[in-house]
Amino acid sequence: MFDFSTIQFVDVIEFIGTFAFAISGIRLASAKKFDLFGAFVVGLVTAVGGGTLRDLLFGVIPFWMDNSIYLWCTLFALVFVMIFHNYLIHLDSTFFAFDSIGLALFVVVGAEKTLNLGFDPWVAVIMGTITGSVGGVLRDVLINEIPLIFRKEIYASACVIGGVVFVLLYNHTGLNLIFVEISTAFVVILVRYLAIKYHLSLPTLKGEKKNNLPY
Amino acid sequence: MFDFSTIQFVDVIEFIGTFAFAISGIRLASAKKFDLFGAFVVGLVTAVGGGTLRDLLFGVIPFWMDNSIYLWCTLFALVFVMIFHNYLIHLDSTFFAFDSIGLALFVVVGAEKTLNLGFDPWVAVIMGTITGSVGGVLRDVLINEIPLIFRKEIYASACVIGGVVFVLLYNHTGLNLIFVEISTAFVVILVRYLAIKYHLSLPTLKGEKKNNLPY
Amino acid sequence: MFDFSTIQFVDVIEFIGTFAFAISGIRLASAKKFDLFGAFVVGLVTAVGGGTLRDLLFGVIPFWMDNSIYLWCTLFALVFVMIFHNYLIHLDSTFFAFDSIGLALFVVVGAEKTLNLGFDPWVAVIMGTITGSVGGVLRDVLINEIPLIFRKEIYASACVIGGVVFVLLYNHTGLNLIFVEISTAFVVILVRYLAIKYHLSLPTLKGEKKNNLPY
Repeated sequence: MFDFSTIQFVDVIEFIGTFAFAISGIRLASAKKFDLFGAFVVGLVTAVGGGTLRDLLFGVIPFWMDNSIYLWCTLFALVFVMIFHNYLIHLDSTFFAFDSIGLALFVVVGAEKTLNLGFDPWVAVIMGTITGSVGGVLRDVLINEIPLIFRKEIYASACVIGGVVFVLLYNHTGLNLIFVEISTAFVVILVRYLAIKYHLSLPTLKGEKKNNLPY
Repeated sequence: MFDFSTIQFVDVIEFIGTFAFAISGIRLASAKKFDLFGAFVVGLVTAVGGGTLRDLLFGVIPFWMDNSIYLWCTLFALVFVMIFHNYLIHLDSTFFAFDSIGLALFVVVGAEKTLNLGFDPWVAVIMGTITGSVGGVLRDVLINEIPLIFRKEIYASACVIGGVVFVLLYNHTGLNLIFVEISTAFVVILVRYLAIKYHLSLPTLKGEKKNNLPY
Repeated sequence: MFDFSTIQFVDVIEFIGTFAFAISGIRLASAKKFDLFGAFVVGLVTAVGGGTLRDLLFGVIPFWMDNSIYLWCTLFALVFVMIFHNYLIHLDSTFFAFDSIGLALFVVVGAEKTLNLGFDPWVAVIMGTITGSVGGVLRDVLINEIPLIFRKEIYASACVIGGVVFVLLYNHTGLNLIFVEISTAFVVILVRYLAIKYHLSLPTLKGEKKNNLPY
């Protein structure tokens, strides 16, 4: 269970992010006619998948195995979708905000954990991106769709830029850690917001036809 | 190679379970026109995939790297399907029984290993479910189908209920370990049998249309 | 960054192999309309995916986290495809040669690392095959295609045969390591070349229809 007396601000943020990520997994799974268990699993994988791959690559026990809060949070998201499914579409901008907050936090957590473990700055950028985006990739593989992130790069670019900002501020300024974290989160949210508002996207490579490759 | 002098009852059960899981992977891969190597790999992944993810999450060397029996068992399953493919459909109820025995054993092994490593009871329920069901999920991803388990939850519910029963009996009774294991296995098999016999399934979430999500 | 003063012959080979694997991922991703970031990720996963799974199974930090060369190599491959995409089809035989060299090297590296860690010879054959082929499997899962390797087994058979040759020469002859490595690489390349030249392939299992399985 969860000891409520030790809740801090960052826990609230993490709960919001986990909840928003789980909601996106549950809704996409439901659209594919998954049953309640399937929706729960896809929600959980969306929420903890990125951090799990990061921790596996680091050779440490995945973060969610120490604390059942992520499980409860996903269960809460499932019940929430069951009760409010007719109204969810009216809440899309709220969920988008939650999702962006969660993404920003995940990037910060992933990059910070990497530097604390003594890896190079470029590993921190990769791990921030993995923590923020792999959950969504696994979600899309499980529902048998091409990962959205590879066609609409808003997520990924925001993660990469956020990771770079974190590393620069953390390693090359004497700024307070909290300020570095909040600045990074702000950049992630801003990049994503601007990319959607102005329909920014990366170009696609041209000139390739499927099955061109002889091997 | 394998030292036959040390075979115990649980090894026989594990061989039957591995064989049945491998058969399901090999048959589904063959239906997708995979060649012999592809069928072998899908069979192996179905049989050892769940336990492998469990061991990766625990940070221990995957169980099959210590003993080549799982490889031989999958090879035996491949040869078996090659020889008897015209008769397999008449053996479906036999394979269903083997498959259920294997599932039950995998849940027990996953949950027991978790508690022995000192993790919380809820982790044991998750690891029992992962050990029993992830092999089938990976099989379905490799053959490019939506994982069956997310639409027909018989497997998953049986794993979860079995995991809860194991944890309760193991932690809160003074029962002999063998009795706890057999009781758990019996519950898993019974739940699965009843679910199929009475067409029990979990409800699906309604009200979502694909591409509702703006992010 | 990369210290150019320490480059050895094996590094050049590894760079060529990584480059060729990344190119195949980038080209297939582009054919699916992935954007630049998506193409980069698929290229990177194709190049380092096999070695990453191998290292996760061994419980060691994945090789690419110690050296940013793999990242730069993938970036170089991306820029190369961007500039020369109209001419790439005329270079297919060159890329096929690079790809085969890379495959051969990956098999050698995977098998050698396994024996150095003290595992059994059959584990070395599996790890050589995983190192050589899993990157391509992950690539195909990400672009939502059935893994090519399971239908055209040239890759896989060459990996398995190469792994067996390496283990036999390494364990049962007093040959110099460099000679064992080059002989193995030669066998991998030869098997693949002959398989393509003479249209050799493994048979497919017959007699299965989809959805035969009641479970």
